[in-house]
Amino acid sequence: MRKIAVGLLGLGNVGSGVVKLLADNADSIRERLGGASVEIRRILVRETEKQRLVDVDRKLITKSASSILDDPEISIVVELIGGEEKARQLVLDAIAHGKHVVTANKALLAAHGDELFAAAEKKNVDLYYEASVGGGVPIIRALREGLASDRITEVIGIVNGTSNFLLTKMTDEPQPFEQILAEAQRLGYAEADSSLDVDGWDAAHKLCVLVPLCFGISIHTKDVLVEGLRGIEPIDFRYAERFGFVIKPLVIAKDHGDSLEARVHPTLIPRRFMLASVNDVYNAVYVSSHALGQSMYYGRGAGMMPTAVAVVSDLLEVSRNLLSSSVGGPPTGRVRTPKRIRAAGELESRYYLRINVLDQPGVLAQLAGLLGEQGISISEMVQEGQRTDGKSACVVMTTHIAREENMQAALMRINLLPAVVAPTRLLRIFDRPGENATRGGKTA
Amino acid sequence: MRKIAVGLLGLGNVGSGVVKLLADNADSIRERLGGASVEIRRILVRETEKQRLVDVDRKLITKSASSILDDPEISIVVELIGGEEKARQLVLDAIAHGKHVVTANKALLAAHGDELFAAAEKKNVDLYYEASVGGGVPIIRALREGLASDRITEVIGIVNGTSNFLLTKMTDEPQPFEQILAEAQRLGYAEADSSLDVDGWDAAHKLCVLVPLCFGISIHTKDVLVEGLRGIEPIDFRYAERFGFVIKPLVIAKDHGDSLEARVHPTLIPRRFMLASVNDVYNAVYVSSHALGQSMYYGRGAGMMPTAVAVVSDLLEVSRNLLSSSVGGPPTGRVRTPKRIRAAGELESRYYLRINVLDQPGVLAQLAGLLGEQGISISEMVQEGQRTDGKSACVVMTTHIAREENMQAALMRINLLPAVVAPTRLLRIFDRPGENATRGGKTA
Repeated sequence: MRKIAVGLLGLGNVGSGVVKLLADNADSIRERLGGASVEIRRILVRETEKQRLVDVDRKLITKSASSILDDPEISIVVELIGGEEKARQLVLDAIAHGKHVVTANKALLAAHGDELFAAAEKKNVDLYYEASVGGGVPIIRALREGLASDRITEVIGIVNGTSNFLLTKMTDEPQPFEQILAEAQRLGYAEADSSLDVDGWDAAHKLCVLVPLCFGISIHTKDVLVEGLRGIEPIDFRYAERFGFVIKPLVIAKDHGDSLEARVHPTLIPRRFMLASVNDVYNAVYVSSHALGQSMYYGRGAGMMPTAVAVVSDLLEVSRNLLSSSVGGPPTGRVRTPKRIRAAGELESRYYLRINVLDQPGVLAQLAGLLGEQGISISEMVQEGQRTDGKSACVVMTTHIAREENMQAALMRINLLPAVVAPTRLLRIFDRPGENATRGGKTA
Repeated sequence: MRKIAVGLLGLGNVGSGVVKLLADNADSIRERLGGASVEIRRILVRETEKQRLVDVDRKLITKSASSILDDPEISIVVELIGGEEKARQLVLDAIAHGKHVVTANKALLAAHGDELFAAAEKKNVDLYYEASVGGGVPIIRALREGLASDRITEVIGIVNGTSNFLLTKMTDEPQPFEQILAEAQRLGYAEADSSLDVDGWDAAHKLCVLVPLCFGISIHTKDVLVEGLRGIEPIDFRYAERFGFVIKPLVIAKDHGDSLEARVHPTLIPRRFMLASVNDVYNAVYVSSHALGQSMYYGRGAGMMPTAVAVVSDLLEVSRNLLSSSVGGPPTGRVRTPKRIRAAGELESRYYLRINVLDQPGVLAQLAGLLGEQGISISEMVQEGQRTDGKSACVVMTTHIAREENMQAALMRINLLPAVVAPTRLLRIFDRPGENATRGGKTA
């Protein structure tokens, strides 16, 4: 029977998982492929002598990319080296050699997706990337296939497991962010260099992978409002709870018809919203579409095996395409309907403000006045008694829907008030009235 | 360009939705199929003169099944007439004529899946059924494709929207079941004949569709422990909450290696378990597998458009297979590994018991004694003060894990006690320790 030869670029955690899954499931894979087998023909590594997580035939290991790219029998290249520039060159080379590509690299797709998809289309090869967003969550396939005949209006996701772990911890234990982060790093839940996760860039990359798939337009991280977790304090979780919210690290993209909104920030969401139950390192993507209404996909966002499962499911899909001569199938991320991306200032949201003020008469009136000047109205407000110094107080409020540029203007003026003794903490609220509400129609 | 001709059996809600989606999305479907179009060639109905939900060319309407089955140009038949026997014959005839089949009919698949899949395999045609379970939840595709290289150990689902709606209502409002049901029927959330939904049979059919896909073995409703919602009282929701649970209508299938467990019943689940947030008519399926760990798929379980989206996504998938000559692909529900189905008595669970007793000394000792004789130990217990008659009391308890046959034996004896004044209410508890807990490994 036919063998499908695969070249693996990289043999770290995920690569080792792929090797293991292909070996463990060889029989069922053969059954699914009508007798054909998927075999790893060669593995590109940086250090040939390194200890590996799986047993691999030494003869497969190579430091030469061209031994993969120039091998005419290798039909699928799996890119798992990460990073941008080298990965980009290898993927482009693989495509140029007529090879199909499976990648888990969201940073690569976020930065160079247009170029790569165009190259793949031109050479009529497949470029699959299920593992790039929410490893254990088959969100790419669901969006591409399940919603094929539907029109998506909004996507809201928790797509960075480390951020979700940190905010879940802070919800459960009132400890400072830096302390929680240090503990997470010690436990291996956060990288030593945490900025990609904590500052929102990993999530932004993933949003840039989802948007073309959902809305048919390409987008870059520079078009996205990105805010990370730093500066959130334990007290913010307490107030959020008091107002009926939990704080989650969200990515949000919404189609406004003429324009698209895209943002990444820690967000207050109602406790009963489905995403509020997504805890620890789990990921979820919540999709609203015309015909389906709401749907959600939940699972482990990362880790060796979930990501490897996603890579192998792509490998099987491309193999099926190969065996049935239907590669280069439906578009996977092409630009279709150019649409303006809304600038940060245009975005609209409800807001949470925690303002540290001197406890003196007239301060509240000043705050309300500055917000009112910008057309922002207050929804709820709490003024907490004296803090330890006995002189300052904490004013916490939520607003009704306001425009980001108005809020930023008000915020600047608020922080300039003599009575305001520390920078105001601003968080955005995602409030979905009627969420999960029952609607008409036959049910079963 | 090529046209793929479709014969539609049935033009009710879902059929009308399919007609509408194919018309509304004609352009994007053509783009996805490389220029080919999907066209409805003929529609089988019972009454040709009936008013329809969509405009349809009168010439397409027919009362003659053979005008579809004998049309060599029709390559895909979509079965939406429901019911078992007539649908079975039509699907078998369609397969015998070499046509690919898309169906939304879970009752058909639950009763005759083996026969239909065998016939499809023999004729090398596709038999797709995404719409049969959880309309708006692409669970069939996710299980078949996304988890292709993984091994599923357990599936837990809320797959009947009506039941979930009723239990959600009873959680929110302390009203008797029959009253809630009558209201749901008035609002159109429950059928006039509600027994298929309320007594668990619709859910059992869906479980019988999921099990072959997840575990490679076929199963029939007679093998499944099925209990419906009747007999649940508002007070049960109050006690459930007191013990930290909510009550959800679950289907559960679990692989025990040598045997398989399958059951359908209202279940107490911990409040923080993801499925506890699935409310109203929404469905969700929660899957545990070796490599992925936990994942969940959530969406609208039924309704015209969600179900139609699922049917159209199958139509597109089969069309892609047709265009690429790869029909009759991977197995969709064949028996692979014969495995014993556990009898009801063998099942194990924690239990909730609400026992109405005369308020007299020694009753608790009798209850504990009868449970103890069966090796069942009590986890928590509450005895509620006198009821309105001043003579009887309510003993509510949860047990540790026990075997169903032991519990049923104890229950029989408990109900025979002179001090027990009404049949005891038994509910099962699905308690998943460590649910959603954080585990080791790199996260991102």
